Amino acid sequence: MNDHQDQPPGPLAGVTVLDLTTMLAGPYATLLLAGLGARVIKIENPDNPDPSRSNSLFLGRDGVKAAPEHDDDLSLAILDRGRNKEAITLNLKHPEARAIFLDLVRRADVVVENYSQGVTERLGIDHASCRAVNSALVYTSISGFGADADPRLGKAVDIVIQAMSGLMMTSGAEGEAPVRVGIPIGDQAAPLFATIGTLAAVLQARATGQGQHVDVSLLGTLGALVAAEPFGMAHKLGRATRTGEVLPRMAPSGVFPTADGHIAISAPKDVFAAGVFRAMGCPELIQDTRFGSLAARVRNHAALHEMVGAWTRSLDTAAVAALLADCGVPNGPVRDPVEALRHQDLLRRGDTVHLEHPRYGAVEEVVAGGMPIHMSDAFTGFDKPAVTLGASNGDVYGGLLGYGREELDRLRREGVI
Amino acid sequence: MNDHQDQPPGPLAGVTVLDLTTMLAGPYATLLLAGLGARVIKIENPDNPDPSRSNSLFLGRDGVKAAPEHDDDLSLAILDRGRNKEAITLNLKHPEARAIFLDLVRRADVVVENYSQGVTERLGIDHASCRAVNSALVYTSISGFGADADPRLGKAVDIVIQAMSGLMMTSGAEGEAPVRVGIPIGDQAAPLFATIGTLAAVLQARATGQGQHVDVSLLGTLGALVAAEPFGMAHKLGRATRTGEVLPRMAPSGVFPTADGHIAISAPKDVFAAGVFRAMGCPELIQDTRFGSLAARVRNHAALHEMVGAWTRSLDTAAVAALLADCGVPNGPVRDPVEALRHQDLLRRGDTVHLEHPRYGAVEEVVAGGMPIHMSDAFTGFDKPAVTLGASNGDVYGGLLGYGREELDRLRREGVI
Repeated sequence: MNDHQDQPPGPLAGVTVLDLTTMLAGPYATLLLAGLGARVIKIENPDNPDPSRSNSLFLGRDGVKAAPEHDDDLSLAILDRGRNKEAITLNLKHPEARAIFLDLVRRADVVVENYSQGVTERLGIDHASCRAVNSALVYTSISGFGADADPRLGKAVDIVIQAMSGLMMTSGAEGEAPVRVGIPIGDQAAPLFATIGTLAAVLQARATGQGQHVDVSLLGTLGALVAAEPFGMAHKLGRATRTGEVLPRMAPSGVFPTADGHIAISAPKDVFAAGVFRAMGCPELIQDTRFGSLAARVRNHAALHEMVGAWTRSLDTAAVAALLADCGVPNGPVRDPVEALRHQDLLRRGDTVHLEHPRYGAVEEVVAGGMPIHMSDAFTGFDKPAVTLGASNGDVYGGLLGYGREELDRLRREGVI
Repeated sequence: MNDHQDQPPGPLAGVTVLDLTTMLAGPYATLLLAGLGARVIKIENPDNPDPSRSNSLFLGRDGVKAAPEHDDDLSLAILDRGRNKEAITLNLKHPEARAIFLDLVRRADVVVENYSQGVTERLGIDHASCRAVNSALVYTSISGFGADADPRLGKAVDIVIQAMSGLMMTSGAEGEAPVRVGIPIGDQAAPLFATIGTLAAVLQARATGQGQHVDVSLLGTLGALVAAEPFGMAHKLGRATRTGEVLPRMAPSGVFPTADGHIAISAPKDVFAAGVFRAMGCPELIQDTRFGSLAARVRNHAALHEMVGAWTRSLDTAAVAALLADCGVPNGPVRDPVEALRHQDLLRRGDTVHLEHPRYGAVEEVVAGGMPIHMSDAFTGFDKPAVTLGASNGDVYGGLLGYGREELDRLRREGVI
């Protein structure tokens, strides 16, 4: 386990977050808050905890396995998303639970939830209920289609959001089948925006004393990112909206095969294009009327990209990269994710990290996302491993709320916590 | 032009941001801050403005065109990324400019920059220089590989980051060439994290009076997102890290062809899988030992996904969607981005919006990203179109800094602004 006794506090020290979320989109938002130093209290139903706890794969005393075998085997999912969070149990369907939850709300700055529509109202823990006991509270909801969505839109999951946002029809080439992106970007965009909205609302609450409801959707956030490219206009002007591994409008730009892999090259400016031609050993091509300006290169992109590809195929990736670097051309090797995430370019900064088991420590072979935000005078990152279900009940119910041991025993006995 | 006289202020009202960024990654971060109500002052070299101003395509009095024809034709890129920002000119290479910049820093809460390594030091506008005049300032740097990176890593651009982060080898199937994602996600991850880091540091500065340097990289932020999937472990256990349009470990899940398009289906739980079988008219399959549990479905995913695909191919997308919805199965149509971004699911909430020209107003056919963060008691979004180069010189140099008209004329004449 890391030991960071001397480190400065995180930038969100003093911010308390109640985390009602499950699965990926919600827990990733609260993970970011935790990695910036907020106190995040994850609240789980004792009989029906976050399904992330039972996602295959698992880590325990004897390494990684597909199915859990021991009490202290924990899923990689919870070991990742549970870092730097406390974990308490509370059965929100129990008649006593709402009062306890509102007790926590009185001491919190933020609630984050990703329940299905109508659930928080049914449980009496919706924004209105919470605001009634804490007017400075920021209450953030992450949903598939928005807090006000037509219920007929149904349940949103990553692959459905990738489909409906248009993302799947931006990769690949015209006429090809849709392309699913291999990371859950439909589940990742929303927590990033939710975290931004939450922090902006906390800033306003600190200034005015008034909190509010923050509402982001999976479809809206990924859609806003897809809209960064003017697909509609490209289409109207008769340009392809899907161009595969090359970018004709920035020629020469694209991903090209080498003798032992692939390399990405981006050289839309004349100075970079001239560098590509020098690296290829054909410096005169920048004088060629077909390739002397971006407009000319865009017109002749097919021929140009074929020439570049023929050259890259004749050399190893490292050789192509060295020649391009000498000529000042932006380029980079295509890495497999297994290799990429363990590369020193990422590990050295803590942008990726080795996951830790609370009892068995870090496992060299298990790499997860770190906190890719670095600060000169505050600690950011994950220095506490995830904990087991309810492990923080004593700290939170005893410490934060001041409940006595007998009361805690009774609540446990009666299935409230 | 929209008129929002009666709207409440944004959550970041009172936060002033100096924006030194160009291209996409930096300006998207400051766009998010502007859309949340911060006062964002974009600073451009009068002789060499943000290259985004000259990116094809352009919008003007006569609609959209590939090349600019009139003085007031503005690029779609600047019309998008310049919304709700002020724009001033300042030639930071002029000997007088540094003092003027530091005058602005004294009145600012945040500086955001994405210069190449060493440039801010050379210009005397690095974090140390700014902190010396304003200790509460938050100074955010967005770079390719981190503020402390080896200069040999060179220049980062979206496609290079997609390659080096491993992202390109997560989509597609085993053995296939790398897949470039058709949106600039390598340029979009960093500004989202930069905005989170900036707001967290502003919160800390408001509490302690001390600002700091916030440092995010394109590679680190996208790498952290790629690391959300345990690729290393899947690989070690002999599982495919690229599974194309289906998700064998969540079978039945994937994208399937229909008679007139494609549909995404996600049904890993037994209750959803049973729903798929009911929708297919074969409810008995959930009793079949091959498909009765997730473990069984994962073992037999190839046969299962072939059956599902054969069924979806026989019907139109709408018909498949209706049958699945009746059976409670998460699903969604694959939309083309042109169609997706204009869909009411996005436009109704302002997650996508029509872009506005400052003189000629909104153009129905040009759709851009909106602000996908919605707040109950604060305005979020874009209600002011981008402005031309230096349009805010009077407001900022005259209004904010109090320079007189003669001084402004002199600075302009001498090429300082």
